[in-house]
Amino acid sequence: MIVVMESGATAEQIEHMAEAVRRLGLRASVIEGTERTVIAAIGEKRADMMESLASGPGVAAVMPIAAPYKLASREVRPDPSCVRVGEFAAGAGAVGVIAGPCSVESEEQIMSAARAVKAAGATALRGGAFKPRTSPYSFQGMKEEGLKLMAAAREETGLAVVTEVMGTDDVELVARYADVLQVGARNMQNYRLLEAVGGAGRPVLLKRGPSATMDEFLLAAEYILNEGNDQLMLCERGIRTFEGHTRFTLPLASISYLHRKTHLPVVIDPSHGTGHTYMVPDLAYAAIAAGADGLMVEVHPSPETALSDGYQSLDFAGFEAMMARCRRVAEAVDQELVGSTVPAS
Amino acid sequence: MIVVMESGATAEQIEHMAEAVRRLGLRASVIEGTERTVIAAIGEKRADMMESLASGPGVAAVMPIAAPYKLASREVRPDPSCVRVGEFAAGAGAVGVIAGPCSVESEEQIMSAARAVKAAGATALRGGAFKPRTSPYSFQGMKEEGLKLMAAAREETGLAVVTEVMGTDDVELVARYADVLQVGARNMQNYRLLEAVGGAGRPVLLKRGPSATMDEFLLAAEYILNEGNDQLMLCERGIRTFEGHTRFTLPLASISYLHRKTHLPVVIDPSHGTGHTYMVPDLAYAAIAAGADGLMVEVHPSPETALSDGYQSLDFAGFEAMMARCRRVAEAVDQELVGSTVPAS
Amino acid sequence: MIVVMESGATAEQIEHMAEAVRRLGLRASVIEGTERTVIAAIGEKRADMMESLASGPGVAAVMPIAAPYKLASREVRPDPSCVRVGEFAAGAGAVGVIAGPCSVESEEQIMSAARAVKAAGATALRGGAFKPRTSPYSFQGMKEEGLKLMAAAREETGLAVVTEVMGTDDVELVARYADVLQVGARNMQNYRLLEAVGGAGRPVLLKRGPSATMDEFLLAAEYILNEGNDQLMLCERGIRTFEGHTRFTLPLASISYLHRKTHLPVVIDPSHGTGHTYMVPDLAYAAIAAGADGLMVEVHPSPETALSDGYQSLDFAGFEAMMARCRRVAEAVDQELVGSTVPAS
Amino acid sequence: MIVVMESGATAEQIEHMAEAVRRLGLRASVIEGTERTVIAAIGEKRADMMESLASGPGVAAVMPIAAPYKLASREVRPDPSCVRVGEFAAGAGAVGVIAGPCSVESEEQIMSAARAVKAAGATALRGGAFKPRTSPYSFQGMKEEGLKLMAAAREETGLAVVTEVMGTDDVELVARYADVLQVGARNMQNYRLLEAVGGAGRPVLLKRGPSATMDEFLLAAEYILNEGNDQLMLCERGIRTFEGHTRFTLPLASISYLHRKTHLPVVIDPSHGTGHTYMVPDLAYAAIAAGADGLMVEVHPSPETALSDGYQSLDFAGFEAMMARCRRVAEAVDQELVGSTVPAS
Repeated sequence: MIVVMESGATAEQIEHMAEAVRRLGLRASVIEGTERTVIAAIGEKRADMMESLASGPGVAAVMPIAAPYKLASREVRPDPSCVRVGEFAAGAGAVGVIAGPCSVESEEQIMSAARAVKAAGATALRGGAFKPRTSPYSFQGMKEEGLKLMAAAREETGLAVVTEVMGTDDVELVARYADVLQVGARNMQNYRLLEAVGGAGRPVLLKRGPSATMDEFLLAAEYILNEGNDQLMLCERGIRTFEGHTRFTLPLASISYLHRKTHLPVVIDPSHGTGHTYMVPDLAYAAIAAGADGLMVEVHPSPETALSDGYQSLDFAGFEAMMARCRRVAEAVDQELVGSTVPAS
Repeated sequence: MIVVMESGATAEQIEHMAEAVRRLGLRASVIEGTERTVIAAIGEKRADMMESLASGPGVAAVMPIAAPYKLASREVRPDPSCVRVGEFAAGAGAVGVIAGPCSVESEEQIMSAARAVKAAGATALRGGAFKPRTSPYSFQGMKEEGLKLMAAAREETGLAVVTEVMGTDDVELVARYADVLQVGARNMQNYRLLEAVGGAGRPVLLKRGPSATMDEFLLAAEYILNEGNDQLMLCERGIRTFEGHTRFTLPLASISYLHRKTHLPVVIDPSHGTGHTYMVPDLAYAAIAAGADGLMVEVHPSPETALSDGYQSLDFAGFEAMMARCRRVAEAVDQELVGSTVPAS
Repeated sequence: MIVVMESGATAEQIEHMAEAVRRLGLRASVIEGTERTVIAAIGEKRADMMESLASGPGVAAVMPIAAPYKLASREVRPDPSCVRVGEFAAGAGAVGVIAGPCSVESEEQIMSAARAVKAAGATALRGGAFKPRTSPYSFQGMKEEGLKLMAAAREETGLAVVTEVMGTDDVELVARYADVLQVGARNMQNYRLLEAVGGAGRPVLLKRGPSATMDEFLLAAEYILNEGNDQLMLCERGIRTFEGHTRFTLPLASISYLHRKTHLPVVIDPSHGTGHTYMVPDLAYAAIAAGADGLMVEVHPSPETALSDGYQSLDFAGFEAMMARCRRVAEAVDQELVGSTVPAS
Repeated sequence: MIVVMESGATAEQIEHMAEAVRRLGLRASVIEGTERTVIAAIGEKRADMMESLASGPGVAAVMPIAAPYKLASREVRPDPSCVRVGEFAAGAGAVGVIAGPCSVESEEQIMSAARAVKAAGATALRGGAFKPRTSPYSFQGMKEEGLKLMAAAREETGLAVVTEVMGTDDVELVARYADVLQVGARNMQNYRLLEAVGGAGRPVLLKRGPSATMDEFLLAAEYILNEGNDQLMLCERGIRTFEGHTRFTLPLASISYLHRKTHLPVVIDPSHGTGHTYMVPDLAYAAIAAGADGLMVEVHPSPETALSDGYQSLDFAGFEAMMARCRRVAEAVDQELVGSTVPAS
């Protein structure tokens, strides 16, 4: 960490701060520049305590140097990791597609969706049983009944089941039916939940919060890894910006950045990332071209009558067409869409 | 809700969508404009289901008209509500100040802080016992031991205790010691937690998430109100924007907006809202001038050595000076800082 | 436009506002809903005057329905337009690549860059002669001397020359040497400049301002089209968001949106859009996969010693490798990289 | 500037970068930390050239230490500056209020507005003669005729005239009639215009661009100061964020920050900063409480029929009430509203 002093800082203030650095168990290297002095703090990092130094006398700023996460970093684990569940795989060259409705609404709906996405080449089924809804008056999901229907869909299709868990109390129940536990964007910094899914013995898909920085995202991942669970996927699903013509702004540079900083696979959600059905395929192609390790896509038998998120769901024909082109794009960038080279016909 | 058709929409598409509106139990009023047709959907709102209409044929956009929240709205309860705990009060003309350290660190620290903020005119004590930390490696709080120390501080000073609850499992424990349960910004859309604090029988302070819209904020409040708890304060603590010279951007227009839309008291947190000690007083004055019903301020005996958030904490002298000027500003806008007209001397 | 009344609006207020709508020469259709009344204003739009109605008595909001731009819209011109200059083409299925250094620095630099990008398949050469620099103390460009060097590079390579014009006084001079006039992001709403380049008789590349909405972007385009110039490309180069790990956030959904709303070709700039050399290729592939009509990329013989923007420039080898993969991605989505099928070997 | 190396950087890469720093005429201080090495570059700053070092081998990041502006900084000029024109003054304890319509629409309109704002205590008159409008089809202002009307209003009332100049060609004309030249938010980085107003011999009010960082804002100011003009006011008028319930988000922490970094007076525009008439007074009080040196407020005889910006304009009664309370708030924070202690009665 670098402590930057004000240009008018006195010798006493500089010594005071150097001493403060030493008191934290670090070595202080004082560098006198032409305009101002900086103090480099050397040693094992204790970033959070050092931040308070910013309120010291004559201090202009405190700048961190080292990344605050460890287990998630490529420095600790240089090779990309891969999450595998049944036929589904994401990472290390494999691209896995997770598709299905926003919410499980009925047996017919989830079974037909499962068959359709399987036929088009998906290897995992998404579907919400516990739904985090902005309004308490909105449809909140079918709960355990929904989980059972998803498990039945897995029986028939072999698709891995990915579903959201909203609270620590539900982790055990959801883990009983699901293959992958999803932590939603609203809960990215619900640390109790991160700890609980970290200890649940199931792979986890962690969605980025809409205003989370990359450091915050990777530190949230660190909470899960820190519980001993390294079957973890990161999911970029868009950030909140001033743009109003999309539901969120989907920053695909996240893929390049995360691949450089972490070994964890990166999944892109073009449905939430755009909020408009007609944009989903374009952004799916783009995600794969940029090197994504997976896609998460909302597909519904009849988007117009969906109980949630119909405005961003593909119908079956739309999904099938998208998958065909996704395969070609994956090939063009030397990636492989797992399970989709020989779609069920 | 208004369904806006594309300018080239066919008569069939228009009729299809009008029928879709009727199927939801609403009346459809079709208005043919010069350039395009819009369909007004009239009746009791079912906003979430209507959103899926956006994927219908020929539809350009679906625009909500009615506010999605009810219990929080001034239309349901026209007069401002006031939250009172002991000497502390916020709302309906009363301005309450909540002050204290970010984290409870030791008996000496919290007791000296409690005495100092009480002497300067605060009526509630803040202090974290369970700390939501971005990194799993940061200090996580003293937990129950911290709660006990805060309760002891209340015994001596009479200050109301405000402290954060991070998970549903902790609600009962925290409610045993605290006067006001705080839901942090990271948990604003942790719906399980909102329901739990809604049912805990204690006043609640709900912090705005850094990327929450006002509708999302008020709908989170609605989750709490919906459990029968109307002792609720909203706390604006800054939003995430492109600005890097402050930790968050603190939008004081939230006060005007919320006062127009909801009866709930609005508390401003200039500490998190700016992230720099030297800015806190200016923004505290501004908040009161703009009509805030309360302030939440970080105060620490020695900010430079704080275990968390020292960079944005006031020391005792700084807080005392700030309070003196706050009183004058409150007077200038015909508000009253409760408990501070006769500070302990 | 829809005038939404407050839920408590009186009959008089409603009639007052209906009358105000009529006074603007529009027809007012009053729709009484269950909770509130809305007034649809029907007729030829005069959006800017209607906005002031928002301050009328009992008005909750005024919501525009029609797009505010005309000449840029697909409603006026349904087929995609294509901008062609020499071998360069963008739009209607053709993908054109513009490449070269941020600034023209010397004859050797620009000539070697021109040869290298031509060999790799670019059909236009970028290079700044007049540089808009954040600081008055930064290198401001070689001015006319730089223009002459670019013209010389065109002589040798046949590449179309794309360069920025910063002020109305320079338009004539720049138009003498350049094939395409670029309006930079900082000047997107410099209306005097838009009018001047609109009348200069040269194709224009208009960059999106970092906080411009799509409507603002298209209205800026409208200023140029309105001068009778329809040889216009739109360039998405990233928006300002809270993200700090990239220079800007590059929203590729802009491609899908703009293709739906306007006939104008859409060029993506992954160099400014990310600000990091290592991210540029990934985002270039993504842009083409998402349907971009062109790319604008910074390429420099020695990025590390560039007088500007070296941190986001590719070297020659990096650009060549990128172009090879771009061709494959374009093919995968049925687009064609013009001029690059038979690269100089 | 600090060059941060990747944690795996080789000795050769480190030496290569140290040499690159030296080649720029700086001293390189290499600091080996526990996890990674940083190189401090010491000497006179050449920030823009150093940025390209970020593309060097093994470099993780380049972090600037010194502020990039000089003439605007308090390090160069420690005491606050004050801009005075007639009775108007802003800075160094004086708070000046600039009020009037968005656009000059007619003689009657501007004269009545001038009288009303003067009577309420304003010391400067705003009014647009050349209007930068998002759409080319919107009312573009009365041009020279508007300037003449404002000059006539000054004759009668003594108010200083503040009006926007949109292009270099208009600077001379506008400077003939106006007392203060305003550079609008859209033109904050129109460097040609900044240079032109810097040399026009008139005080300047520079508005912050809606996505400008503080460094960019102060560097834009530097362009003007660099032309020898130090009669300069900075105006915060709100930034673009995800918030949709206000037109922009108005960050009052800008006042504290700018007062710490620059000697230039800071004016707040609560009209554009909120976009809603009902919010303007609250934010005006807040701005003064936070230490603003001036206000810029839109006032119109009949907001509902204004040709522009009616939705955010106060009527005369609203402005008068606001000014009365502004005086009380200014007093509470030991500031003085110039010209308003003895309002015309």
